[in-house]
Amino acid sequence: MSVSMFSEAYSELFPFWNEISDAERRFICDNSKALTYRKGANIHNGEECSGVIFVRSGCLRVYILSEEGKEITLYRLHKGDLCMLSASCVLQSITFDVHVDAEENSECYVINGWSYAKVSEENSKIKIFTLETALSRFSDVMWVLQQILFMSMDKRLAIFLLDESSRLGSDTIELTHEQIAKYMGSAREVVSRMLKYFSSEGMVEVSRKGVRITDKKRLRALAL
Amino acid sequence: MSVSMFSEAYSELFPFWNEISDAERRFICDNSKALTYRKGANIHNGEECSGVIFVRSGCLRVYILSEEGKEITLYRLHKGDLCMLSASCVLQSITFDVHVDAEENSECYVINGWSYAKVSEENSKIKIFTLETALSRFSDVMWVLQQILFMSMDKRLAIFLLDESSRLGSDTIELTHEQIAKYMGSAREVVSRMLKYFSSEGMVEVSRKGVRITDKKRLRALAL
Repeated sequence: MSVSMFSEAYSELFPFWNEISDAERRFICDNSKALTYRKGANIHNGEECSGVIFVRSGCLRVYILSEEGKEITLYRLHKGDLCMLSASCVLQSITFDVHVDAEENSECYVINGWSYAKVSEENSKIKIFTLETALSRFSDVMWVLQQILFMSMDKRLAIFLLDESSRLGSDTIELTHEQIAKYMGSAREVVSRMLKYFSSEGMVEVSRKGVRITDKKRLRALAL
Repeated sequence: MSVSMFSEAYSELFPFWNEISDAERRFICDNSKALTYRKGANIHNGEECSGVIFVRSGCLRVYILSEEGKEITLYRLHKGDLCMLSASCVLQSITFDVHVDAEENSECYVINGWSYAKVSEENSKIKIFTLETALSRFSDVMWVLQQILFMSMDKRLAIFLLDESSRLGSDTIELTHEQIAKYMGSAREVVSRMLKYFSSEGMVEVSRKGVRITDKKRLRALAL
């Protein structure tokens, strides 16, 4: 029952699913769990091998954390996405630690890391998919690096607000300045100062509820 | 003659060399060139597929460049290292551009990118090596990101000076403040200010020739 539930989902997720043996498919399903995470829960703290996480619904946030508790969001995972970096035992060449939180209530299928590592080592089709999935996040992280290093703060904030607005399908972004700063890898003071400037220019309205975009056209021009 | 030269070098470089066919080995060698780059030369500007570069001697620097010309060094390649990110046609999941300069006079063997991509697609052993090589640089880049984001400038500069000193086997680092800033992804003013502080604390001596470390012990304590 639960095997067929996993198997059905994996046949859509894994391009190699129909090219591996019955025993391999069975092994992966037998080492899978369906887990539900509450909004805000920490799923992976960078230390253990938490396994390969397949997002069925909700949203996970992958980030790095400094000793002083400063966070930088690397990317988010939505329905249908796979988190490979949480399975450090699968990827020997990844020597850095990421953290993963549930940003919304999320349903996931989690494959035990050591079991996944085993089939991945034994089957080159699985191995290639695994490496390609991990490598595709390299580009996301480079994008974050470039944003932070090369882009001026007004542009970065405009892009962030427009992205959030389009993701939520709403002009109002219900986040505190502190939260926005955290997501952007910036400081609250910097975000507050820039929002004040945006507000004085009539591009946004800042209230206790969050930030409402009032002039999307100008914000878009800034984001170019 | 030149085929056997490449073949000998590749047998040490590529773990798959003895597991692929004669035809594949021949094809890789036939599509290889021995190239020499002068110190300071740009080898790859991020636009074309410059091929897979194997460093035989010298040193290459891999960096990203902003529209305004600001540079961030991602990592350096020394003798025996392989540059995979310069072969963008090999790695579909890498969507960012890097630049590569010769930091010293360097001798390299360069495998044509499209030819390498062809054998990599056809042989899973080559493909796995290719992906693993690219992925191992992900960790280097994450390290740079964490340095830049999380570490205070004094610590970063101390680490930079100690690293350069141990790499060169000399206490004197013959770089201008401008060059140090470039390598560290910082501004010249910031580096100059910090070097002045280090100098006032007796940890370094700053002269026209560069920076000489005078108190390695204290610099090491700062780098911890």
